[in-house]
Amino acid sequence: MTDPSRPVLLGQNQYGKAETRVVRITRDGATHHIKDLNVSVALSGDMDEVHYSGSNAHVLPTDTTKNTVYAFAKEYGIDSAEQFGIHLARHFVTSQPSIHRARIRIAEYGWERIAGGHSFARQGRETRLAQITYDGSSWEAVSGIEDLVVMNTTDSEFWGYAKDKYTTLPEAYDRILATEVSGRWRFGWTGGDGSGDGGDGMTTVPDWETSYEETKRHLLTAFADTYSLSLQQTLYRMGARIIENRAEIDEVRFSLPNKHHFLVDLAPFGLKNDNEVYFAADRPYGLIEATVLRDGCEPRIPVDLTHL
Amino acid sequence: MTDPSRPVLLGQNQYGKAETRVVRITRDGATHHIKDLNVSVALSGDMDEVHYSGSNAHVLPTDTTKNTVYAFAKEYGIDSAEQFGIHLARHFVTSQPSIHRARIRIAEYGWERIAGGHSFARQGRETRLAQITYDGSSWEAVSGIEDLVVMNTTDSEFWGYAKDKYTTLPEAYDRILATEVSGRWRFGWTGGDGSGDGGDGMTTVPDWETSYEETKRHLLTAFADTYSLSLQQTLYRMGARIIENRAEIDEVRFSLPNKHHFLVDLAPFGLKNDNEVYFAADRPYGLIEATVLRDGCEPRIPVDLTHL
Amino acid sequence: MTDPSRPVLLGQNQYGKAETRVVRITRDGATHHIKDLNVSVALSGDMDEVHYSGSNAHVLPTDTTKNTVYAFAKEYGIDSAEQFGIHLARHFVTSQPSIHRARIRIAEYGWERIAGGHSFARQGRETRLAQITYDGSSWEAVSGIEDLVVMNTTDSEFWGYAKDKYTTLPEAYDRILATEVSGRWRFGWTGGDGSGDGGDGMTTVPDWETSYEETKRHLLTAFADTYSLSLQQTLYRMGARIIENRAEIDEVRFSLPNKHHFLVDLAPFGLKNDNEVYFAADRPYGLIEATVLRDGCEPRIPVDLTHL
Amino acid sequence: MTDPSRPVLLGQNQYGKAETRVVRITRDGATHHIKDLNVSVALSGDMDEVHYSGSNAHVLPTDTTKNTVYAFAKEYGIDSAEQFGIHLARHFVTSQPSIHRARIRIAEYGWERIAGGHSFARQGRETRLAQITYDGSSWEAVSGIEDLVVMNTTDSEFWGYAKDKYTTLPEAYDRILATEVSGRWRFGWTGGDGSGDGGDGMTTVPDWETSYEETKRHLLTAFADTYSLSLQQTLYRMGARIIENRAEIDEVRFSLPNKHHFLVDLAPFGLKNDNEVYFAADRPYGLIEATVLRDGCEPRIPVDLTHL
Repeated sequence: MTDPSRPVLLGQNQYGKAETRVVRITRDGATHHIKDLNVSVALSGDMDEVHYSGSNAHVLPTDTTKNTVYAFAKEYGIDSAEQFGIHLARHFVTSQPSIHRARIRIAEYGWERIAGGHSFARQGRETRLAQITYDGSSWEAVSGIEDLVVMNTTDSEFWGYAKDKYTTLPEAYDRILATEVSGRWRFGWTGGDGSGDGGDGMTTVPDWETSYEETKRHLLTAFADTYSLSLQQTLYRMGARIIENRAEIDEVRFSLPNKHHFLVDLAPFGLKNDNEVYFAADRPYGLIEATVLRDGCEPRIPVDLTHL
Repeated sequence: MTDPSRPVLLGQNQYGKAETRVVRITRDGATHHIKDLNVSVALSGDMDEVHYSGSNAHVLPTDTTKNTVYAFAKEYGIDSAEQFGIHLARHFVTSQPSIHRARIRIAEYGWERIAGGHSFARQGRETRLAQITYDGSSWEAVSGIEDLVVMNTTDSEFWGYAKDKYTTLPEAYDRILATEVSGRWRFGWTGGDGSGDGGDGMTTVPDWETSYEETKRHLLTAFADTYSLSLQQTLYRMGARIIENRAEIDEVRFSLPNKHHFLVDLAPFGLKNDNEVYFAADRPYGLIEATVLRDGCEPRIPVDLTHL
Repeated sequence: MTDPSRPVLLGQNQYGKAETRVVRITRDGATHHIKDLNVSVALSGDMDEVHYSGSNAHVLPTDTTKNTVYAFAKEYGIDSAEQFGIHLARHFVTSQPSIHRARIRIAEYGWERIAGGHSFARQGRETRLAQITYDGSSWEAVSGIEDLVVMNTTDSEFWGYAKDKYTTLPEAYDRILATEVSGRWRFGWTGGDGSGDGGDGMTTVPDWETSYEETKRHLLTAFADTYSLSLQQTLYRMGARIIENRAEIDEVRFSLPNKHHFLVDLAPFGLKNDNEVYFAADRPYGLIEATVLRDGCEPRIPVDLTHL
Repeated sequence: MTDPSRPVLLGQNQYGKAETRVVRITRDGATHHIKDLNVSVALSGDMDEVHYSGSNAHVLPTDTTKNTVYAFAKEYGIDSAEQFGIHLARHFVTSQPSIHRARIRIAEYGWERIAGGHSFARQGRETRLAQITYDGSSWEAVSGIEDLVVMNTTDSEFWGYAKDKYTTLPEAYDRILATEVSGRWRFGWTGGDGSGDGGDGMTTVPDWETSYEETKRHLLTAFADTYSLSLQQTLYRMGARIIENRAEIDEVRFSLPNKHHFLVDLAPFGLKNDNEVYFAADRPYGLIEATVLRDGCEPRIPVDLTHL
């Protein structure tokens, strides 16, 4: 049945250790600091043979990439997820001849202090994301956020839409708008890893911690302040506000599920529901996804990165 | 094969609608307030026939219990999860002759303000729990907490334990102690639903909102302040501090997974790990469970309530 | 604020390593066999001091209980989850003076052969459960099943129910009945661990593998064959059929969510839905729970064991 | 702060209702058939205004796309997930001038008969996937599989790999190889929707049901039959066997986590582990991803489609 005369080729491939859970404690006297990361390494390069014949001569084991994460947490510390990713990506590409490209994906879990210097509660509201890619000459940095659930209890309408024979939805002039934000934003920075001194957005390494906090603040503010005629409009404002205010960011992509809150019909019980009682539905849900980018920039965040 | 001469009896049974997701908005001018609950109703009573013959004459449909949750959210509002549970439990037991007992379980998700009066972010750190049971004469109230992940980065030891031929664990004199708190606490209150005027813990209805906030504060403080020689000791202090400080609570039960953070061995890489780099493990995990109760009180929180 | 004059007592407590994932391969020439278990150990006994003062002198580390699981998988093999639990429970209670009771909970994942003797696919349809408890004199064995989703596409009705002012549900004369079975069944066997020679159900050790397969067959057959007027009736028949046919089982408890499949209203599109198109809802769901037991037997399966 | 002189553009965008859960019953006398799908619709087109100004004039509501799924389940039935996706994609693109592209993603859950004609158990082993994209002129069909966990208990080695200063992994000459298959395969078919009569792979509509079953059989057989020197080698053989045997498929992409089963060190207990007792680890895990394609074909399955 098999037809060996039909050649079969290897396409894009990558490998590495996913979800290495590293917690780095910094002890500043009695005041401790936590960085809690989930690190996934994906390496590409001269890997034909391991696929075709099973020869591992060019394969640095995934176990080694895990060890490297732990060793680098000691050697370099973790100033930010992005900076930690830069150390890792550069190491794999520059130290192994067979590895030509490294992509480091990191999820970071926040902790807040309970009391004193060494007691913490996991923050739980959102997950911070970072992705660093290096191919030996050029860098790409994409940061992001997940799991952030937000709600406006008014200032949202939905009407004037196209209708066909399957349309039954009544128009809404005051509805709840809620979503769980999944966002990614790409930095203009593409070169140098801190040692450069460029004066523009392209070569200066961003201040990753400040950039994240400010970007989060802008997207939350845009969500809260936009009087919304559609979730698409809100999405665009969230992205545009980031582009307008953060010079280091060139592109933003959001995947925003419309977490429907349906007004419950209380009329059968002789009650009037004056926008007070809602059913929070699970599935199905509207899903709004879009890229927003600075004029003149190329879109590079993959369509499927933010949501499957 | 079937032997119909062996009689088979019906034992404990209950039914109802689980996980009704109700969001109640209260609009105080431009300032809005959210109560976001997941309500599960379980009813028991004169239910032999529906099991033996399928006659539903005594069965109020689960769909009706769902409707009642929504109607009551309008009629009574939601001052607290516990008070809302009291309204529901009393209604089912007093309005349906065949229903002799109602248990209302509620999970509550917190929201915090982003900005202005109508924009919120889901808090995400912990889930609040409430369970109200009423049998027509006596009430039981159990509140609780879930999903709260906490960590001490020092002041935890583990040594001096029993050893057998399968023991390989080295003793630890300075380790990370982390857990995900699942707790339940039972109130002394067993009667009246607010209209009583008793002067003691048994008959006065607790101030549910204050009680929850204070109980959470005490358990967090006990976790942070206890120099721990074992997670059991920490658990006991968390429960004891609640009993000592909150007169309205007679019994506490905790289920505390030991979220192991193992020190990574960096010696193979020529590095010394000075309590800096940890691997956060998933499974297996130690699991410590115990009831702590006020002297003279009977334990009533089921062993299996806090964890499966 | 703290009032140390109010004594606070320790109640029921237990500890151990949860979710030790052990896979045991038996190699019968080129034909291999897999047992894939998730084992949770819970030990109780003379444990006051570890809670009150943190002294671990009576505490066998949870790490040791994990090691014991792995060592016993080698020493005894895994004939069945129940038999493996018996070995473990007896060991902890008889070898450590401070441990007076051991409860071993096991989930087992099934594998089916793809081809040849060493290639398998995880079966995925259901999870098998076993729980063995030993207090030094008496044994309790509870087996069970989870994650088994079943559906009847006809032969289910629901009408003739009680109505109140919140009832809007229309009666149904031909509906889909679907549920995700979570069941536990308790064996009459309470003593001896295989070395006895009793001739009755009380002292003979059950054939665990056959008993599980037959019990599963009976509950599936009862689900399929019962013309259902309510899910309660179906639940009772599932339990009764087990009791009637399996002499070794005295008690069964089921927790059956009613996985609602709502007929979609296609009338707005000029279409008739002749029991053809359904919406599979997530939440809320009816939840039906009951114990069924052999006449003369005491119920012992906790109400909260099957579902939270 | 905001700089409105920096123009911000809208990039790729799509919207629709995700996760519409439709169950279609076909009643062939007493023998019933189930199709159980989770359908996600994503539409793109002339959508600038809804993002920039909130005008919904070009927006068919996501609620309508949900209604259409249900109506089409009645009107067309569900012969296969792929054919159902074709009906939906064509409808949206051809009936709404503002919609220029539709992507329909479907997950299908299998059911197997318990007994008789109307009783079923959910199969649970794997999830079938289908994705149909139509832009008004050209079609793309990608099918796939998820959640399929497979294991070889021998015939897997891993040695001869690259080493650096962070490498500690010992070589393995007989290990367990296990993975959870996530795969996607793209069909050569790009035109016509069944009415064409082309005699080659490009224009003939595949027999979707047969193609899925055969493709699954080939990937399982390749997994089982490959003596593996690396998971990459196994992955390539799985993809190549599909390409070699299924003329209708041009490209395959797999994301294969290495579900590590570590041999437990029993030496401390005086026991020898002769490849019998393994610890099934959760995280971290190796992750191997690659595209395999027919010579002469362009890769089109996105790198991020199979795994995040």
